[in-house]
Amino acid sequence: MLKLYYSAGACALASHIALEEAAADYEIEHVNLRQGEQRTPAYLAINPAGSTPALVTGHGVLTENAVIMDHIARTHPEAGLVPEPLSFAWSRMQSLNGWMASSLHPAIGKLLFGRPPLEGEARAVQADFALGKFDIVEQSLLTGPWAMGDQYTVADGYLSVFTRWARQAGLLDQTRFPRLNDHLDRVQARPAVQRVLSAEGLAPL
Amino acid sequence: MLKLYYSAGACALASHIALEEAAADYEIEHVNLRQGEQRTPAYLAINPAGSTPALVTGHGVLTENAVIMDHIARTHPEAGLVPEPLSFAWSRMQSLNGWMASSLHPAIGKLLFGRPPLEGEARAVQADFALGKFDIVEQSLLTGPWAMGDQYTVADGYLSVFTRWARQAGLLDQTRFPRLNDHLDRVQARPAVQRVLSAEGLAPL
Repeated sequence: MLKLYYSAGACALASHIALEEAAADYEIEHVNLRQGEQRTPAYLAINPAGSTPALVTGHGVLTENAVIMDHIARTHPEAGLVPEPLSFAWSRMQSLNGWMASSLHPAIGKLLFGRPPLEGEARAVQADFALGKFDIVEQSLLTGPWAMGDQYTVADGYLSVFTRWARQAGLLDQTRFPRLNDHLDRVQARPAVQRVLSAEGLAPL
Repeated sequence: MLKLYYSAGACALASHIALEEAAADYEIEHVNLRQGEQRTPAYLAINPAGSTPALVTGHGVLTENAVIMDHIARTHPEAGLVPEPLSFAWSRMQSLNGWMASSLHPAIGKLLFGRPPLEGEARAVQADFALGKFDIVEQSLLTGPWAMGDQYTVADGYLSVFTRWARQAGLLDQTRFPRLNDHLDRVQARPAVQRVLSAEGLAPL
């Protein structure tokens, strides 16, 4: 059985959604980041980098959402959660997931969860920076109706983590981001996503 | 022919090394980040996210080092630059590359290239943070002799970008990081890496 280490509402939500969409046989274990549980010897034995998510499989541990989601999708091909593995479309999806991990996540994450919290001018600058990243998705990267076109893929669940955060912060303006709002609504309407939100104690936003 | 958009000495060096190690048929085009060339309409038509590297292929454009390097390695299998595609070892390499992109790169990148430049206490805090990331590689992630064990993979070229930056900043202390120093020396001794450094106007460090 697969085991996902996650922190409620954090970016591991994307891997959690992938597990549920794939109808995988899995269990979840919560890691309380605010209490520093990611730095306990027990957790560092699972992921020496001390971050979530981590997926324990029968072969070993995988980390990073993009890699975990791809592993889940490829080992549950009947769910159709990625383009044909090793195809160019599949690589394009990996480019998008990689960009979300390295650019979109830190931009919005620092705004919402930075320690110490950003205030005043520094907060305004970071908000502008994050909105600029969402502009790139709205205008160029979201081909529609799903991130990769007609097929719902793991990239959609991943994107919804960050648009949820943006909506939570009052930043996902309908006029500026009509496509991202519509996309988030459709992701949150999926039964698998609703089950995952409920399991993490979160409400659709 | 493949075409790599890069900025000299920036993280695209990893994709450049992969092209040369693969003996690929490729050309390079410089994007001057300091002069903002990544935000010109011509470059945004290639990569709407306005970042380097970008690899133009016969099928379209790929972005993010981890994805570009994997594409190069898989389309040049004779070079043996990745574990068997879709194997668990290959996924583990992707986890490492993903972590370098999302954690190691920003930690050392902000220290060296942050704008405005970090000074005083803020600089010391960021240096400690970056060194903590290198500790994780030194103590846990570098299985040796190469990042993934006995096989030189694209993850080694990628790691060397960040250890080069660290050595450049005087942070790659021999006592604290013996394995990372040895690893960087061995990467820089590779003929393909020396050709790439020369092409980007860089010297081995």
